[in-house]
Amino acid sequence: MRRGDPATVTGDRSEWPRGSFVQAVEGVLDSFVDSRRPTVDTVGPVYAEAVEELRSFVLRGGKRIRPSFAWTGWLGAGGDPGGPDAEAVLQVCSALEFVQACALVHDDIIDSSLTRRGFPTVHVTFAERHRRSEWIGDPDAFGEAVAILLGDLALCWADDLIREADLPIETVRRVGPIWSAMRTEVLGGQLLDIAVEARSDDSLDAALRIDRYKTAAYTVERPLLLGGALADADPALLDVYRTFGADIGIAFQLRDDLLGVFGDPAVTGKPSGDDLREGKRTVLIAAALDVADRDDPAAAETIRAGLGTDLTSAQVDEMRALLFRLGAVDEVERRITTLTECALAALSGADVTPDAADRLVAMAHAATRRTT
Amino acid sequence: MRRGDPATVTGDRSEWPRGSFVQAVEGVLDSFVDSRRPTVDTVGPVYAEAVEELRSFVLRGGKRIRPSFAWTGWLGAGGDPGGPDAEAVLQVCSALEFVQACALVHDDIIDSSLTRRGFPTVHVTFAERHRRSEWIGDPDAFGEAVAILLGDLALCWADDLIREADLPIETVRRVGPIWSAMRTEVLGGQLLDIAVEARSDDSLDAALRIDRYKTAAYTVERPLLLGGALADADPALLDVYRTFGADIGIAFQLRDDLLGVFGDPAVTGKPSGDDLREGKRTVLIAAALDVADRDDPAAAETIRAGLGTDLTSAQVDEMRALLFRLGAVDEVERRITTLTECALAALSGADVTPDAADRLVAMAHAATRRTT
Repeated sequence: MRRGDPATVTGDRSEWPRGSFVQAVEGVLDSFVDSRRPTVDTVGPVYAEAVEELRSFVLRGGKRIRPSFAWTGWLGAGGDPGGPDAEAVLQVCSALEFVQACALVHDDIIDSSLTRRGFPTVHVTFAERHRRSEWIGDPDAFGEAVAILLGDLALCWADDLIREADLPIETVRRVGPIWSAMRTEVLGGQLLDIAVEARSDDSLDAALRIDRYKTAAYTVERPLLLGGALADADPALLDVYRTFGADIGIAFQLRDDLLGVFGDPAVTGKPSGDDLREGKRTVLIAAALDVADRDDPAAAETIRAGLGTDLTSAQVDEMRALLFRLGAVDEVERRITTLTECALAALSGADVTPDAADRLVAMAHAATRRTT
Repeated sequence: MRRGDPATVTGDRSEWPRGSFVQAVEGVLDSFVDSRRPTVDTVGPVYAEAVEELRSFVLRGGKRIRPSFAWTGWLGAGGDPGGPDAEAVLQVCSALEFVQACALVHDDIIDSSLTRRGFPTVHVTFAERHRRSEWIGDPDAFGEAVAILLGDLALCWADDLIREADLPIETVRRVGPIWSAMRTEVLGGQLLDIAVEARSDDSLDAALRIDRYKTAAYTVERPLLLGGALADADPALLDVYRTFGADIGIAFQLRDDLLGVFGDPAVTGKPSGDDLREGKRTVLIAAALDVADRDDPAAAETIRAGLGTDLTSAQVDEMRALLFRLGAVDEVERRITTLTECALAALSGADVTPDAADRLVAMAHAATRRTT
């Protein structure tokens, strides 16, 4: 039996987004790729091989955090996991993973990343294939070209999944603007990220703005709203989702920023201090520079000179010590705490089903808690 | 008054896709970008500037050939340009231009093209901006990153336009599979194009397959079918559109291949013989090599050695002479003639409105006739 075959997962839907939810999402994605195979095969075996690479990439894990928030947003507004809409809702939730696949594949080109989830990135995979096969031309350019096209394909397929969920027209009218805004926002957040790095804008405002659009809106707020709109939530609940989503989303990114500098490589899957070597302009860094520019110009210079360079372990340790000493780590922890409290306060007053509220609280903690 | 304001174009709809059609399509695209500005502005001025670049790119011409075929497909199946559906149909037709914008912007990265329609390509525009502003990092990588994201945005906006046309659910069900197949096919065609070049596959079969999916299906066949589906055309007419579209689409690409080698730079906007320097694996080249491999190995070697290199004018002339001498030019002209005849024969037996039939005949000739 195929993974995620509806028959195997229907039984535990009341547990979702825990239990078999991730499996069910992967089942939808897998079946969807199957459904495109006739068209893909007509174009030819070269295309079919590339599409299988995209399938592997999409199925290769991740915590399906966006579908989980969307599903929970739907539950919270009264969606019935045993009801007739559940299948279509699962499909819409799953579509978020194709948007995410595009974002990751294209981001990996933009960042020249070599690995993703412990595997070679898509552009590296195809560059390697080109190199091994001794084809004509530049292997890296070939890898990038294929990855650009496969990212585009994932983006198209996200839309196909939504459209083929065959939602009632009123639901489409509610969901459409959220879906549309989400994608326009996340692309804006990504663009901002690149622009801010190019301009070496290390202001707190820029860092927070990127967190807002590249992460918070895209990862928590819009998925929750999407779920809410699917269940025709009332405006008051959508407002709560908006607040909760933005706050938890930013807190989640701030936790990720801390992990990117202080995290255990065994847990994060990235070399220790990787964000420092990559030169990411995070709120953590912005907060440190904010203090250092005022009180400790030498520290500011050390940070600016070191960021984005090939730091030794000793230099990484020095940077870490500076971030502590300047109070940036405490500042970020404080922000995480405040944001999480605000989010939970908004939720506690909301007309959300109790079961979903419990799950949102758990998800908020999971997304923002210390793990080191 | 804004370009394409509905009030200015409604009067001449009976002339479309001639007359004010191009203007009307551009009006839809322009207004659509306006409608996204609130979201874009929220993300920030950096994003707004980039989006204005995308707007200029999308409005900067092209013949709007895909919307024209879609509109004519709709007319041919009985669509009423004065009726209540015309506005939504125009919007769906216009969405094709956002798909095309993505295809061009991403293709220009893939081909490292410097100009498009007489202007710097999008990635070059942003690389230049980076260079001029003396930002940090590699200007070319920056330009590519922005162009990848703006291409993605165009692709998302294509879907937004379709969804916001607010078609009746039965129409969505008819149009959706065509829209979906079109995008999956064209990305496959592009991928094939890259793969074939990398593998130096100069077979006729490979060249024809690329023409089929990268051009014919995407430029003529699927737009016609989209128009037909919008008007709920009967299956017999859709079959005619399929044949007509595939044949005219391939003939159109074959004419383009000839122009790419023999065309007048003043007409094509590209340096003379550009396709030879770029090393495009066209049907023209495949046909020449097919004969040369059999009868004239020295000629085959000259072609293979010269293709994709920085040929002098004299070398371009020599290649051209070879393509004539080997009969490849005649072969391609014969194919164009046969395909056009087949397409017109299919059309002549079809139950298509006479006015639309006339236009399709005119469009077939315009797309495939000699212009040198």
